[in-house]
Amino acid sequence: MSADATERLVALRRDLHRHPEPAWCEFYTTARIVEECRRIGVDELHVGRDAIDPDARMAVPDGDELAEWFERAREDGADPDILEQLEGGHTGAIAVLERGEGPTVALRVDIDALHITESEDGDHHPASEGFRSEHEGQMHACGHDGHAAIGVGVLEAVANSDFAGTFKVVFQPAEERVGGGKALAESGHLDDVDYLYAVHLGLDHPTGEVVAGIDGFLAVSHLLAEFEGEPAHAGAHPEQGRNAVQAMATAIQNLYAIPRHDGGATRVNAGRAGGGTATNIIPEDAFVEGEVRGETTELMRYMKEKADRVLRSAAEMHDCEVELSTEGEAPSAESDDELREVFGAEAADVAGVETVTERDDLGGSEDATFLMNRVQEQGGLACYVCVGTDHPGGHHTSTFDVDERSIGIGVESLTNAILRVGEEQP
Amino acid sequence: MSADATERLVALRRDLHRHPEPAWCEFYTTARIVEECRRIGVDELHVGRDAIDPDARMAVPDGDELAEWFERAREDGADPDILEQLEGGHTGAIAVLERGEGPTVALRVDIDALHITESEDGDHHPASEGFRSEHEGQMHACGHDGHAAIGVGVLEAVANSDFAGTFKVVFQPAEERVGGGKALAESGHLDDVDYLYAVHLGLDHPTGEVVAGIDGFLAVSHLLAEFEGEPAHAGAHPEQGRNAVQAMATAIQNLYAIPRHDGGATRVNAGRAGGGTATNIIPEDAFVEGEVRGETTELMRYMKEKADRVLRSAAEMHDCEVELSTEGEAPSAESDDELREVFGAEAADVAGVETVTERDDLGGSEDATFLMNRVQEQGGLACYVCVGTDHPGGHHTSTFDVDERSIGIGVESLTNAILRVGEEQP
Amino acid sequence: MSADATERLVALRRDLHRHPEPAWCEFYTTARIVEECRRIGVDELHVGRDAIDPDARMAVPDGDELAEWFERAREDGADPDILEQLEGGHTGAIAVLERGEGPTVALRVDIDALHITESEDGDHHPASEGFRSEHEGQMHACGHDGHAAIGVGVLEAVANSDFAGTFKVVFQPAEERVGGGKALAESGHLDDVDYLYAVHLGLDHPTGEVVAGIDGFLAVSHLLAEFEGEPAHAGAHPEQGRNAVQAMATAIQNLYAIPRHDGGATRVNAGRAGGGTATNIIPEDAFVEGEVRGETTELMRYMKEKADRVLRSAAEMHDCEVELSTEGEAPSAESDDELREVFGAEAADVAGVETVTERDDLGGSEDATFLMNRVQEQGGLACYVCVGTDHPGGHHTSTFDVDERSIGIGVESLTNAILRVGEEQP
Amino acid sequence: MSADATERLVALRRDLHRHPEPAWCEFYTTARIVEECRRIGVDELHVGRDAIDPDARMAVPDGDELAEWFERAREDGADPDILEQLEGGHTGAIAVLERGEGPTVALRVDIDALHITESEDGDHHPASEGFRSEHEGQMHACGHDGHAAIGVGVLEAVANSDFAGTFKVVFQPAEERVGGGKALAESGHLDDVDYLYAVHLGLDHPTGEVVAGIDGFLAVSHLLAEFEGEPAHAGAHPEQGRNAVQAMATAIQNLYAIPRHDGGATRVNAGRAGGGTATNIIPEDAFVEGEVRGETTELMRYMKEKADRVLRSAAEMHDCEVELSTEGEAPSAESDDELREVFGAEAADVAGVETVTERDDLGGSEDATFLMNRVQEQGGLACYVCVGTDHPGGHHTSTFDVDERSIGIGVESLTNAILRVGEEQP
Repeated sequence: MSADATERLVALRRDLHRHPEPAWCEFYTTARIVEECRRIGVDELHVGRDAIDPDARMAVPDGDELAEWFERAREDGADPDILEQLEGGHTGAIAVLERGEGPTVALRVDIDALHITESEDGDHHPASEGFRSEHEGQMHACGHDGHAAIGVGVLEAVANSDFAGTFKVVFQPAEERVGGGKALAESGHLDDVDYLYAVHLGLDHPTGEVVAGIDGFLAVSHLLAEFEGEPAHAGAHPEQGRNAVQAMATAIQNLYAIPRHDGGATRVNAGRAGGGTATNIIPEDAFVEGEVRGETTELMRYMKEKADRVLRSAAEMHDCEVELSTEGEAPSAESDDELREVFGAEAADVAGVETVTERDDLGGSEDATFLMNRVQEQGGLACYVCVGTDHPGGHHTSTFDVDERSIGIGVESLTNAILRVGEEQP
Repeated sequence: MSADATERLVALRRDLHRHPEPAWCEFYTTARIVEECRRIGVDELHVGRDAIDPDARMAVPDGDELAEWFERAREDGADPDILEQLEGGHTGAIAVLERGEGPTVALRVDIDALHITESEDGDHHPASEGFRSEHEGQMHACGHDGHAAIGVGVLEAVANSDFAGTFKVVFQPAEERVGGGKALAESGHLDDVDYLYAVHLGLDHPTGEVVAGIDGFLAVSHLLAEFEGEPAHAGAHPEQGRNAVQAMATAIQNLYAIPRHDGGATRVNAGRAGGGTATNIIPEDAFVEGEVRGETTELMRYMKEKADRVLRSAAEMHDCEVELSTEGEAPSAESDDELREVFGAEAADVAGVETVTERDDLGGSEDATFLMNRVQEQGGLACYVCVGTDHPGGHHTSTFDVDERSIGIGVESLTNAILRVGEEQP
Repeated sequence: MSADATERLVALRRDLHRHPEPAWCEFYTTARIVEECRRIGVDELHVGRDAIDPDARMAVPDGDELAEWFERAREDGADPDILEQLEGGHTGAIAVLERGEGPTVALRVDIDALHITESEDGDHHPASEGFRSEHEGQMHACGHDGHAAIGVGVLEAVANSDFAGTFKVVFQPAEERVGGGKALAESGHLDDVDYLYAVHLGLDHPTGEVVAGIDGFLAVSHLLAEFEGEPAHAGAHPEQGRNAVQAMATAIQNLYAIPRHDGGATRVNAGRAGGGTATNIIPEDAFVEGEVRGETTELMRYMKEKADRVLRSAAEMHDCEVELSTEGEAPSAESDDELREVFGAEAADVAGVETVTERDDLGGSEDATFLMNRVQEQGGLACYVCVGTDHPGGHHTSTFDVDERSIGIGVESLTNAILRVGEEQP
Repeated sequence: MSADATERLVALRRDLHRHPEPAWCEFYTTARIVEECRRIGVDELHVGRDAIDPDARMAVPDGDELAEWFERAREDGADPDILEQLEGGHTGAIAVLERGEGPTVALRVDIDALHITESEDGDHHPASEGFRSEHEGQMHACGHDGHAAIGVGVLEAVANSDFAGTFKVVFQPAEERVGGGKALAESGHLDDVDYLYAVHLGLDHPTGEVVAGIDGFLAVSHLLAEFEGEPAHAGAHPEQGRNAVQAMATAIQNLYAIPRHDGGATRVNAGRAGGGTATNIIPEDAFVEGEVRGETTELMRYMKEKADRVLRSAAEMHDCEVELSTEGEAPSAESDDELREVFGAEAADVAGVETVTERDDLGGSEDATFLMNRVQEQGGLACYVCVGTDHPGGHHTSTFDVDERSIGIGVESLTNAILRVGEEQP
């Protein structure tokens, strides 16, 4: 990659790093990406509502939060014309290059940030170099700023190559809440894709290592249960209450006790819970916000069905109402060997790559799996790759950072792999 | 009372004490009582099916147990013709004296025994005097043998008096399981009663004391919940089970947590519970046998409704079926002042009575309350009295015994009170 | 009462109403009361630290909240010299009249407000008359503004009378959190009191009615349990967590299941509970804030001991630590007949009083009971009285208001009763 | 195998099938095996106490049950001299052939039966052929009668061969309760073993198939928790009880909720639970009998430690005592490739073997693993093999049966494998 291109991507990454935005609020981020795509010159550019299926979005924040971030993007100088297309939490974009006969190849990157307050420590590179988050309490602590930069970099490299066929870069919102994958999978834009790569930086692999195929995605579903009962004075009329906190407690006890499954690993967590208003009032409302996971999508569904039953029965037991909602979801998926081999082989030849690891397990969840499943169901191939990066703090911590050398490695490895699958069609 | 009459009643009490029979199995007992009534000479004698409403019986044992006790009564020498009327758990009797114009007065006594093994100790009077229980594991440990004798004694005394009106002695089965009261209350025989007395010996009051009016009956309902799920191998396929023991445990936790009530005292107890077949099998069945109580009948109903909801929801939560049944029940009741005063005044003049206590709380449950409520609902008056007796061991213990002097005191006090209400009609 | 005096008390009440302050933050309120006492002229005036036992305070807010309210009082124009004596949450005052030989009589009133947002409705008198709360989110919704005015009124009336003996008015902070009673009881100022009255407005009794003696105080203890475990990624390493939300849920289930008690009514409520940080993190912290009550102080202690055991064992079960604290507490108490009779007789002669009700049950909790118990333990008499007032909304609701006519009724009734006990010494 | 030998083994198997005995009660069974060993002629014969470490026995029945089965064995004609060595539940035997220089090779078979009532159906071969269980309610429903016959058959075949070295056949008691493996592992008799085979019939593999190496043993621990509280009358004095059923329910709820583990599969089951005596008594005792399992021994220990914590804390919470005991236990284990390959190769050449399956997972638990671990820890090799058999009903069902042809297949396959490891020493 030219020094020029590298410099541009680093500058873009730092710009995005200074403006981290949470799920479905990536207004500034999307606008900046769109500007880059326009600069590069693409044949089609699907923005916001045109890039996603709005009805398939999950974990969308409420209107106030959306409006606040929208306004902030405006204040931060995002292009008002682009912003207009994103209003109401319709973020994300898909850039398309139409280069004649050939397969349709796609690259998916995610772009959202986290509710974490970034370190101000002098050792923390973004702090010392002056691109620490300007949105206090928000942070790119999982490298999606780098992912976006890689997406732009690969787009430009392929645009400038003799690639024949169709190439799409999918800039996906709301991965951190597993809320965006489905909206892209159901947008239609993936339905003609023959080969899909998705990429993540880091994952505890250092700069110089790449992992050619990631598997072991736990299918996940985020659930929210809101219990509503009836308040009453706890001293004077305890029998007049319908106790939402008792329903919540019964639910929690039984959620963790959902039977283990012979088919493989399952998980359940009541990660946040609470209720009640005052010491002397029988609690009238309560909630459980949690998640279930499974080694396969079926195992996750098993857990979800059991969890729903527990939550509903716990409400019924204490004469409360309960509203259940799915706040985010992602299936399991597997990387295809053919794409894995291509990436491994091409990455091995890229300057800076010292180790090519054949495969690894994620051991967590990711909603790129929605896109992978979609492509595979339509007869295509999909592969999730990792580009190692030295990260001082762990993912999702306040001292996480990306070694910017890995951006170039990612761009070159992916570009070469994409050009080769364009030619060879594995 | 004549020495003769006294001797006869003591002999009867000892005969019954040697042949204790549990709820709805009082075959020998009923037959002996019927023989006594015939000896005395009554105008009507309702036996078994004719004395009770068979469909309103609760806590009836299964056919095998009934048949076993029926056979034992035959072996013990009960009159076969009488037995025939009692078959299938239709025990109890009502003796009626029709003595012209006047009010209808009734006395209720209960006649069943308990699943307790009687003491063989030399200090235990029935053991040393040779009338210890001949039905091993069963015992008259609550004085109902004495109650039956008092019923017979009062019947004879009233028969030999110039009482004018109608007098009924109700020999009620199955009090210990609160299973017989309803069957008598709904028999129709109480519907014309103007004045009803019920009597209990002891209750921690010594010989020489009587309590003219007992209140504080806790309404009670015995409940049985039987959970049915699906077994599965706990190692190989835990997810294939539907776990009845989990349902049971969830139910127990939440039964005790039913909200307290501002209206007065409530109680709940999962007195017996269990389930499962083997260490390595997901349990397919389980049960909870328990009770709820309330200071009033309404409070008991509140507890019962909540308990049913908990039990059903716990089953639903673990995908089990549950069958709920009421195994016995008794409402609350209050003794009427008018009858209380009459009894107190008459008892005070009886030889051997040293103390007349105006009133006391039972603090437990009794299904005489069904009969009391019935009479009071029809405009009559009812009163539950206690005749003190020195009892070495507590009620429901293996060393309980009745001081036989209290039988005569009970007969005289009650007879005098009945004669007076016949005259004065309070 | 003179029109002048009445006007002054109404003005004071409205001033306090405009400046509601929560428990231990009654800086403005205390300062205003002190000013009034100085105006009246008293022989001793104990303020803040001198009025209470600082170490016996319960439910004291944290330093930030105290500092914020302190600053607000300064801004609202409270006397800086008085404020200085109150710093750090040492509010409240005791005014003393030394009038020669005679008994020591005391009146206790409470002065704190509630975390309730006051109605802005035109029907709401404080809103339409311009004395609605100026501290948004805080409100005198239980009439303690009126109580303070009554305290001042009675002080002035007794000061201007020929009362012989010692008279104290106790202006108690933090009643709403049952946090101030103990600090006053243990201050020493109650130890020489022969006769103590405490007063409350309203309690669902209309203007024109007084209740001469309130009983039925439920003893109460507010408890806070803070669980601390260990976080872990719920997908990757669920076994590494120590789950504080599971501990919380187990505790809640078992708190409500503490056995009922034969000795009388008990209560338990987990009024507020919550924990956890994110869907995918095993929750590392959680809390339960609740209360236990009992018809007697012993019953409350029984519940408290059981609750502590449940909370500690639930933490232990899930390998968490738990910190337990008592956030407020009040014993039960009974009003003495002698003082009740005096008050009833005197109130009957006051203009505006139409009905004198002999006694009523509070059915809730109050920490005046600490003071009552203290006086009674030292051989004195105590009585809690109610002065009815038409209140449109219920106590602790946003439309609660005091009919200001009842302030005068309260002042006159109490003054007359105090003068009479001073003379007659019942 | 000669027709003669085959006939003898089938007769032995049927004799044992007619006399099924549960864990540690294999008196008749051991006596018959000892007789066979004597007939064959062995160099050493360790019987009962000499074969096992008595202190390492688990799940030993109580003295009455042992005495009853001992007496029954005598009545069934077992040799009294042998019986004497077995008294008190010291069953099992080890036969040793000392054949000069060479490795020490061992075969382990188990010999106990199950608490299952055998089918009387005409289709059930033992019933129609007249060797149905004569111990009603007990049954060889897992083929251990066949295992014992195979052990005797291999002993005789090796005795008659030119095997050089030491050969031991271990007849292990109490496998069904995972109670005997440890007692053998700690007997010292395994410590010099170089190569150990263990064998099981069936496991859903048909006659003609053998599985050369079984893995996937779930480590297991059987636990018994006995709670003891205090009874009280549930109506009169609920607060005086210490409720063992509440402790039990709390424990069950939380046992199933032990966190899943990232290291692999875990299991937990409260397979049997119960408590209480009567509807109206606060339950004074209760129990939970259950099990925990893990894919590895470490995972089982993790579950066990958590389960113990839950059980102890649940008791503490309800002020009960709890006694915890381990009723049986088995670690996980893995079959060594070298022995697996030898067995597979030799079995392939045995008449009647059609399919050799390389490996399979047990998916359950087995305490042969204690012996396998012991041998492997001392530097030896171990392998668990399966000899398929057509079994009409599943293992542990009343219609289970062994196709007797598989006994000969087992004897020949194992003998050949043992002779070969004796020669080749893999």
